[in-house]
Formats: sequence, structure tokens, C-alpha cells
Amino acid sequence: MPLPAHWQAEPGQLLIDPSFSIAITGAEDARLQRAGERFLGDLRRRTGMLPLDFSQTDGKSAKLVVRIEHPSQSVQQLGEDESYSLAVSPSGATLNAPNRLGAMHGLETFLQLLNTTSQGFAVPALHIEDKPRFPWRGLMIDVSRHFIPIEVLRRNLDAMAAVKLNVFHWHLSDDQGFRVESRKFPQLQEKGSDGLYYSQEEIRSLIAYAGERGIRVVPEFDMPGHTTAWFVGHPELASAPGPYTIERKWGIFDPAMNPAEERTYKFLNTFIGEMAKLFPDEFFHVGGDEVNGKQWAANAKIQAFMRSRGIRDSAGLQAYFTMRVQKIVSRHGRTMLGWDEILQTGFPDSVVIQSWRGQESLAQAAKLGYRGVLSAGYYLDLMHPAWQHYAVDPMAGGAAKLSLAEQQRILGGEACMWSEYASPENIDSRIWPRMAAIAERLWSPEDTTDTAALYQRMATLDPRLEELGVTANSSYAPMLRRIAGSDDTSSLRTLADLVEPVKDYTREETAPVEPTSLLPLNRLVDAARPESKSARTFAQLVDALVAGRADADAKDEIRRWLTRWRDQAAELRATEAHAFLLDEVMPLSERLAGIASGGLEAMDYLEGRQPVPAAWKSEQLALLEQAEKPQAQLLLTVVPSIRRLVELGSQPRSSQSK
Amino acid sequence: MPLPAHWQAEPGQLLIDPSFSIAITGAEDARLQRAGERFLGDLRRRTGMLPLDFSQTDGKSAKLVVRIEHPSQSVQQLGEDESYSLAVSPSGATLNAPNRLGAMHGLETFLQLLNTTSQGFAVPALHIEDKPRFPWRGLMIDVSRHFIPIEVLRRNLDAMAAVKLNVFHWHLSDDQGFRVESRKFPQLQEKGSDGLYYSQEEIRSLIAYAGERGIRVVPEFDMPGHTTAWFVGHPELASAPGPYTIERKWGIFDPAMNPAEERTYKFLNTFIGEMAKLFPDEFFHVGGDEVNGKQWAANAKIQAFMRSRGIRDSAGLQAYFTMRVQKIVSRHGRTMLGWDEILQTGFPDSVVIQSWRGQESLAQAAKLGYRGVLSAGYYLDLMHPAWQHYAVDPMAGGAAKLSLAEQQRILGGEACMWSEYASPENIDSRIWPRMAAIAERLWSPEDTTDTAALYQRMATLDPRLEELGVTANSSYAPMLRRIAGSDDTSSLRTLADLVEPVKDYTREETAPVEPTSLLPLNRLVDAARPESKSARTFAQLVDALVAGRADADAKDEIRRWLTRWRDQAAELRATEAHAFLLDEVMPLSERLAGIASGGLEAMDYLEGRQPVPAAWKSEQLALLEQAEKPQAQLLLTVVPSIRRLVELGSQPRSSQSK
Repeated sequence: MPLPAHWQAEPGQLLIDPSFSIAITGAEDARLQRAGERFLGDLRRRTGMLPLDFSQTDGKSAKLVVRIEHPSQSVQQLGEDESYSLAVSPSGATLNAPNRLGAMHGLETFLQLLNTTSQGFAVPALHIEDKPRFPWRGLMIDVSRHFIPIEVLRRNLDAMAAVKLNVFHWHLSDDQGFRVESRKFPQLQEKGSDGLYYSQEEIRSLIAYAGERGIRVVPEFDMPGHTTAWFVGHPELASAPGPYTIERKWGIFDPAMNPAEERTYKFLNTFIGEMAKLFPDEFFHVGGDEVNGKQWAANAKIQAFMRSRGIRDSAGLQAYFTMRVQKIVSRHGRTMLGWDEILQTGFPDSVVIQSWRGQESLAQAAKLGYRGVLSAGYYLDLMHPAWQHYAVDPMAGGAAKLSLAEQQRILGGEACMWSEYASPENIDSRIWPRMAAIAERLWSPEDTTDTAALYQRMATLDPRLEELGVTANSSYAPMLRRIAGSDDTSSLRTLADLVEPVKDYTREETAPVEPTSLLPLNRLVDAARPESKSARTFAQLVDALVAGRADADAKDEIRRWLTRWRDQAAELRATEAHAFLLDEVMPLSERLAGIASGGLEAMDYLEGRQPVPAAWKSEQLALLEQAEKPQAQLLLTVVPSIRRLVELGSQPRSSQSK
Repeated sequence: MPLPAHWQAEPGQLLIDPSFSIAITGAEDARLQRAGERFLGDLRRRTGMLPLDFSQTDGKSAKLVVRIEHPSQSVQQLGEDESYSLAVSPSGATLNAPNRLGAMHGLETFLQLLNTTSQGFAVPALHIEDKPRFPWRGLMIDVSRHFIPIEVLRRNLDAMAAVKLNVFHWHLSDDQGFRVESRKFPQLQEKGSDGLYYSQEEIRSLIAYAGERGIRVVPEFDMPGHTTAWFVGHPELASAPGPYTIERKWGIFDPAMNPAEERTYKFLNTFIGEMAKLFPDEFFHVGGDEVNGKQWAANAKIQAFMRSRGIRDSAGLQAYFTMRVQKIVSRHGRTMLGWDEILQTGFPDSVVIQSWRGQESLAQAAKLGYRGVLSAGYYLDLMHPAWQHYAVDPMAGGAAKLSLAEQQRILGGEACMWSEYASPENIDSRIWPRMAAIAERLWSPEDTTDTAALYQRMATLDPRLEELGVTANSSYAPMLRRIAGSDDTSSLRTLADLVEPVKDYTREETAPVEPTSLLPLNRLVDAARPESKSARTFAQLVDALVAGRADADAKDEIRRWLTRWRDQAAELRATEAHAFLLDEVMPLSERLAGIASGGLEAMDYLEGRQPVPAAWKSEQLALLEQAEKPQAQLLLTVVPSIRRLVELGSQPRSSQSK
């Protein structure tokens, strides 16, 4: 995963025993040598082999011979060739690629092909020709709203490399925190970060870490809005007098840089110059989203400036600001990238638009000659299921109607992980495994759209991500233990496996107290997964039942699930008195028990054990309607399946398959 | 855990909310300040709080005020005061200690007291006066037979600090590898380690890491035997001509340093001088165990040397060698420590004997005026249950008969983790949680001997260890997945939960092929835990049944376990064809199924459902005898419990409680 562009199975398999070895041949590339060492380390971890097993050797005796034609660019470039071909036979394997990027993708593919057989560990014989559909396949992580330590980013980079992603977009500043050490303007981090920022040394080390894995690092410094944290140390940049304090709430705030003062551009010139030295990537992201214009409207000097320049509104003022910033970015040898709002005529063609609005925006940009990256539909923090992200194609909608030349300006996509509700503890579970579905959308051929196969591949990938250190699974149990206040979490887990956090932006709307960056993220809504596997499995069982394909075992299984759900409430009630974090969970638990009882009754009626009482169906539907409402900011995901059971159970007996 | 020396519960509790703060007061100690930060980090992790919650503040407003009287020694000394007193009331807590060592122990106690209540996270009100029973409470890890990377040691140091251990004994060289960078003699690591060694920088950093946590680091360079790895680069040190290669097997080997050549002592003087600069601890361990004398006997020059000095045997020659080495160690400002074999008269009183032989050895050393540390009975690699280690007291046996002055020479104990069968993946599960039982033996009052309470405390500690990064639990599932060749490991886990690796040194005797350091440690014997929790739980159920205390629920539970054990074999058989690592496991699985069926029959007979057939009991006992034998180097731990069921089931009906 992602599925290769072309592949062909062949007979037999290549055994991986302690004598397995690889050779890195062709052009010299030290980074590929190190990737070879990492590959052997991964292979050892997968097989339980030890450091003295496996080796790097020469092309003659190696079981896997990797050959590249030329070294890759020292600073990874957008659009470098990432293709590879991999041929595995029972006697050995060869991996050919133009450069190390493709070779590393091929090594990841080889690792994913490893499986256990009756003869030993093995990779099936096959032939793969693979290359990405889009050259820009990214993940953005917001480290401002909640600080995300370097080691968390590092494990996520490992996982990104495993699914062939190639851009890490680092959202480094926002109203809630400025996360980079500036040596030119140390007040930025000293006053704007609560001490939670990355040193330049840490940043260099993370960029190198990403680079070793074939991942570019694009920094974002959001401006002119989303800048409160800058103003704590530098109020002179703002459009209203200070003092400012770090924003603790979420939302869109008034503070914005002052586009009417030359000192703003002087500051940005020095700052962007410093950052362009720190971040070697060609692209420099200047944000540009969600400026509400209130500070500008309230500032007489700014209004006078606008009048003097014939600027009519705040959009026009932002366009002026962005034009100036683009020139600064360009002066420091970088290409500007920004959100939809920066779109205007007059930029160099090289500018890239990242769209949180959708393919129409990208199409519009492409028509103006700009390149674009899609993020709308890939917001991981909105808690949508993988299939939904999977269905979003950068080339769909408005983009589909573009000319071929215009379409080529659509570079790919980028998932966004905004961190209002993400902490180092739960962020992995918000990114993975759903990120892999987006990675596949951006790598694999357009017609790779089978959702069932997607979920199967995601399930296979899951333990591999865990081995790379991703905590999407491993952080779940400790969080549940904390909520239960007990090491025995079986009842809570039954419930937790069935709930999902509320979707889109309803977490704000349903919040019991106003959320801030100071509130602990230790509730069930913070532990619950974005997408319930149990609910999906149960829905499949109910599908089979409705279709008349459920045998006695399947019916028993439906009953077992329902019984477990009915019983969890009484078990939880017994411990609730001791664990304050369960208080808000109990109503949810009771609701689940209630509708599960209804589901069991439906099974009884369905199997003709009892006649259906007159008012039963409407009672059940009322319960289900109640259960559908968010509680503790969580959704009970089995409501639709149980509703189907109720419908089925209350059908007149004659029309029903037994 | 370990249980404090004195404690007294009081009414009420101290709530730990986001405003919780601590103050470090009294004498200045930067290491305690940092320990305070780590403490807050741990507390945040436990409660799910974020970096902006909790703070360090001044003594007036803090909820927990820590006060120390004076700084601790810059290099931690044996016997420094480690006592502390902790008073918690609903309004706040105070922790007083002579120095940071006691204060850090008190902080660990505070963390262990944290629990979840209906009001929130809280620590119960109480008063504790605590101090260790022994000043030397250690863990030895052998990093020679299998190399153990720094990060694995680091997480084990965290866990050691959590149970108040204060010595990490680093077994750095042996026949199978020399693991330290020597700048004076780089051939040692370059030829003797397969590239698997610690740089001096890494060593300094680990010593600092340990020191921050109140743990001394005692290096061991085993000599004159267990030295093959030295001789690969320096054959001139050996007693027989080379060349030498790194030993790949386990056992006692012939190579030994040449005690008859002055160049040996010259080399050791330079080497020990270099290492004494690297390792600041007062003690320097020279090993001294298991010299078989064969190389000495075969070397005419050595024999002549012995005759010329009147040395009669190899023990005498080793004594001469050790006397010379002791002087070298002493010249470099260090106190010598060695295994039982170094014991002789004529050393300075400061020398310490570490005993793998037992308390008699310690008593003998104490009578000669030397101090001692007990390791016999604390060998974690021998796979004994926690209660067995817990029952070993350094003051028992020969030591009990000593005078008070002699008894004071017994400094404590040290668990040993020899690494023939330990890898970075499974070593944590060999050390923890059993190490905690030994830690309690060495810290808590002598009369702390209740085994049931021990296991309860160990179970509570378990998740805390996991939070510290210990992989004793988390490495289990990936290892089982690898063996099963599948993500569904439920049947294998049923079996794996019930088996234990063979005990003592029978792993050598029962090995299917000669074990070496090149063989992967990926079999079930490498994943299985040293002590089966399931077997212990089941034994308790059977205890209750035998005592006539089992109600219908308890009987049902016995049946449920037995049914699950009976059924796992058929499930495993279905997957076996695909997973070669299951081949050796299947006979074990079938045996378990067989005796579980017998157990179910026993339950039927016991409940009078069927009459007992004549030959049944002897058939079952024969099956059980078969099942008791090691298979795949594993023991089926439920054999004794099922035997009791069979005995009970075949008793004449009249004598039986219903």
C-alpha cells in the first residue's frame, strides 16, 4: 500500500533467511546506503533476526540487488523521478530506479511484500513497475495549537515514508504559538511559545531525517492573520496596539500584521531570509488564510494608506501584502506557497496555491497559470472515515474540466492535521491509518477505487505502522485505563470501540465548556478512534442478514455483539463512582445498552420467537433517534445498523426471509 | 512498590488538577530541579494533562513542597542517605529528605500513589517515613552475548528508578563481544564487537542519564577468563597463541589472560586507567568467574612461572593475577569488585565480593572482612517466578549467623540478566515485572513477605512500567503475530499465555540445534513470559474448588478456561500450514488440548454427571506426565492444576464436597 501502478504475480517465492543480503549498486549515493541499512533493520525487526543476520554485500552475491542510475538532488526537488521496478524470483530480486527516491519506494514495497510461509519468511515472486500519479503527496501537521515534540514528528515521518508520501508541511506558527527559534528575533519564540518551540538544531536534524526518507519539508509561517503569537514579542507588527498574549482559544481572531507599515516588510525580509537559510526546500508557505480585516478597518492610518493606494477592501489590502511578501520570498530564492486566499493575478507562474476550499479553487488557479495542491477533503482532524477521503480526487470536479496543460498544474494533495484536539498522545491515532488511504489516492492509478480492498490493505498496514513506532493503537489502552481509573477496561473498551468523535466542526459547537489549549485531552472523545472498526464489521453482518445471506452462525454473532453491548452499561455503572472521567460517558453507555436490547428483541421477532408488540417499533425508533445525538461529543456508530434490525424485525412476517 | 518502611493512612485526599504545582526548596541541586520537571512530565502523562498544566513554583504556593537539606555527592556514593518522609493532606503535600536521592524516591512514591477518584485525580492523605534496608540494590545486564542498544538500557534505567534501584552493573565484555570503545586499544572494539559497541560519548551520556535518576553505574570487564573477544584484537594477552575469533556459542571457554607475562599487567594498567576516567563510580568490577585453567595448564612458560613462584594450581595463579589487578584498580582510584572466585585474603578491606554462589559465600567473605552483594537467587535469565526471587534474602542462610559487624558488610543484592537468550525485543519481558519483586526485597523491611500482596503490587506497577517505555507487554503481540504469520493471534495467545520457557540451564540441554549468537530469537520460547499469569489465576480457581469454596460461577469459569484450551489446537492447526514457526508449537498445542479435555471430563465426573470409567484416571495421569515434559523448550504450566482436577474428579463420590 499504496497499490503499485503495474504488477504481475509469478510462481514461487524468495525465502528470507539469516543469510539474506542486499547490494546497493550503480551511482554512488550515501543516503541510499543508509536507507539500505534501515531496510535491513526493518527486515530484522519484522523477522526477529539479530544484527549479525543479513548484510550489505556486492552485486554478485546479494539476494536483493538495488541499482540506481544517478544520485538524487542534494536538496530534494518537486518532480524528481520517483519510479522504480522490482523483480522478485525464487533465486533473488532486483530493484532498479533512476535514483534513490524510487529505490527507497521499492524497498518499502519489498518490506510490505514480506510474509510468513510454511518454509519460512518469504517475498512472493512478482514483477512491479511503479511510479506515482502525483508529484506532491503530503501531510501537514499543525504544531502551533498544541505543540508536537520532535520525536512524534519523527515516527510520523517513518510512517509517511512507508506509504510513499514525500512532503511534510510544517505549520509552525499560528495565534496559539510560534514554534521556531529565530536568532534574528528571539522574542518571537521566547514570548510566543510558552517555551515550547524547536531549536534551529532540532529543525535541521528533522529536515535531515525527512530527507533521508525522501520527504521534503515545507515550512509554513501563516501571515498576515493567525499571527497573535508573533505579536506577543513584536506588537509593532500588528495592526492594533498591544500588548498581546498567546491566544488560548480556537477560532479566527482579529490580530493581523500591518500591511501599511514598511517596518513590517523590513522585519519579514530579515525573518524570511533567516528561515530560508534554515529550510532548504524550494517552497516557502506564507499561509494567508482567514484574515477577518477587523484590525485593519479599525486603524485610521491603515485606512488612509488604502485610500492613498486605491485599495478598496481588506481583500485588496491582503493582495497588496501578499504581493510584497511574494517578492521577499522570491528574493531569498524560494517559491511562495499559500492557501486559497492568496490567489490573485500578477504573481510569477511558479507560485503554488494550496486549497482548503476544493477543486474549483484549484481549477481557478490553474487557469490563472498557477500550480495547486488539494487539501479540501483531506482534513484528518474532521474525523471522517477513510473511504470518504479516498473518494476525493484532486482531478475531480472543476479540475476535470481543465485542459491537459492546466491539469498538469495540479501537483497532488496534502492531508491536514490541525491540532486543536490533538496531543502527542493521540495525534497518531488521528493521522493513521486514514492517512494511508489518502497516500494511496495520490500515488496509485486513478481507477484504484475499491473501498473493500482499501480497508483490507489498511488492516495489513496497521501492524507495520506500529512497528515503526506509530502509537495509533498503543496509546489507546493507556488512555482507556486512565478514563476507567482501572487496569480492567474491558467494558469501557466495548463502548469505546463503538463510538467516534463528532465530525467536522461540531466539536466546538457541542463543547461542554469553552475549549482552550489548557484543557487536558484526556476524555473518551480524545481516545476514541475517528472510525470504528467494530461498527463497520457489525454493519457487514447486518447487510448479510438483510440480504438473507446470514446463516445461524452469523445470527449468533449478531446476538453476541448485541448482548455484549447490552451488558457493558451495568458493568461500567459498577465502577463509575470511582472514576470522574466516566461521568459523561455513562449516558452514552446506557443509550447503547438500550438500543442493543432493542436489537436483541428485533432478532427475537425476526426469528419468530415472539410476536411484535404494536408500539414496539415506534418506541425503538424514538430510542434510536435519541441515541443518534452526540453525547460527550461522541457518536454511537451502530445506530444505523440497529435501526435496520428494528425495521427488519418489525416487518410483517410473511415478507421476511428466514 | 517497594513497600515503604513505615506508613500511615489519613483521612481525605489531595486533588491533582491542572493547577497542581511543586516547589523544590532547601539546598540548591540542579539535578533535583530536573527530577522535578521529569516528575511533572510523568504526572502529565499519567493524567493526560498538557505541558501548560502543572508548574514549578515557590514554596509558598506549591501543592507539593520538596525540601532537601544538602546537595548529594557529585559522583553518587555507596551508602549516601536515601531516606525521605512524605506527608500528604487534602490541602497539600510536603516531601522532606536529607538530599536529592531520598527526594527522588519520594517523588516516585507520590507518582505511585496517584489514582482516579470520583472527584478527579488524587493522592490519598497519608504519612510515610521511608528508607532502604540495603544500600546496594542493583541490576546487572550482560550486553556481550547479545548487544543491547543504549535506548533499551535507558528505558530500563527509568524503570529501575521507579522501583528505587540504585546500581546498574554493566557487564561489558565477555567471550562473545567487547562492547566499549577504547581509545588506547581500539582493536578491542574494532575486532571484538562486530561493530556493536558503545562509543565513549554514549557511555558518558548513559552514566549521566543514570546519575540523574539516582543510579550508580558499575562497569564490569570480566578477566582473566571470559575474554575471547579481547584476544581477537590482542592475541598477545592470551595464554595460548591465536588467532582468535569472536565466540558465537555459549558456555565456559578455555581462553584466559596470561598472568605470567608482565605485558598483560602493563596493558591492563593502561586500559583500566582509561576506563577509570570514563566510569566515575567508586567501584570497578573485574569479573573473575569461571576460569577453567586449560590454557594455563597447556602453556609451558606459565607452568614454569608457577613453579618459580610456588603457585600450586590454577586457583593459585588466578589469585596471583587478581592480586596484581587489584593493585592496578586501586592505583587508579577505584575499589575492586569481583565474583566469588576472587575471594582470598590479603586484599584491602574495601574489596567487594559479588556472589553467584549464595549467602554462604557472602558469609565467608564477611568473615574475612570483605563486603558482599548477593546475586545467587536473583538470576532473571533462569526464568523463575517472582515469588521465588522474593523469598531469597541476602541475610538468610550463612549470613544470618554472622555477627552484627559482619552482617553490616552485606551491602545488598543485584539481579543478573545474562543475555544468551535476550534480545532488544524481549529483554524487558525477562527483567520486568519480576525485577520489582527483587527491588522490594532489597528496599522494604525484612518482614515484607506476603506473596499475594506482592503479586497485587506488581500488577499495579505493570502499566506504570509500560508508561515508562518498558516493552515487557508491548513486544508480546508483535512477536506472536510473527510466529502466527497472521494478525489474528487469539488462538496462539491462548497457548502462549499458558507456557513458560524451560527453567535454569535446561534451555541449553533441550536445544533442537546448538544455540549461537547468530540464531534469531523469534520462537515461542523467546516470546513466552517467564511466569504465566493465566496459570496462576487458574491455580487459584482450582484451589477454591478443592477447598469446596467454588460456587457455580467459579465452576463455570474453570470450564470456560478448559474449553478455550481444548479448542485452541484445532484453530491453530488450521493456520499451521502457513507459518513455519508454528511447527514446533503444534505438539504443545495438541497436548494442551488433550489435558484440557481431561480436565473437562474431570469436571463432569466431579459434578456427578457421569460415572468415572475404570481406566480414566491412569490414562489422564499418563497424558499429564507426557504434557509435563518440555516441548519446543516450553513448559505447560497448567499441568499441576489439571492434575488436581483429575485427582478430584476420580475421588470416590461420597468423600467429595459438592
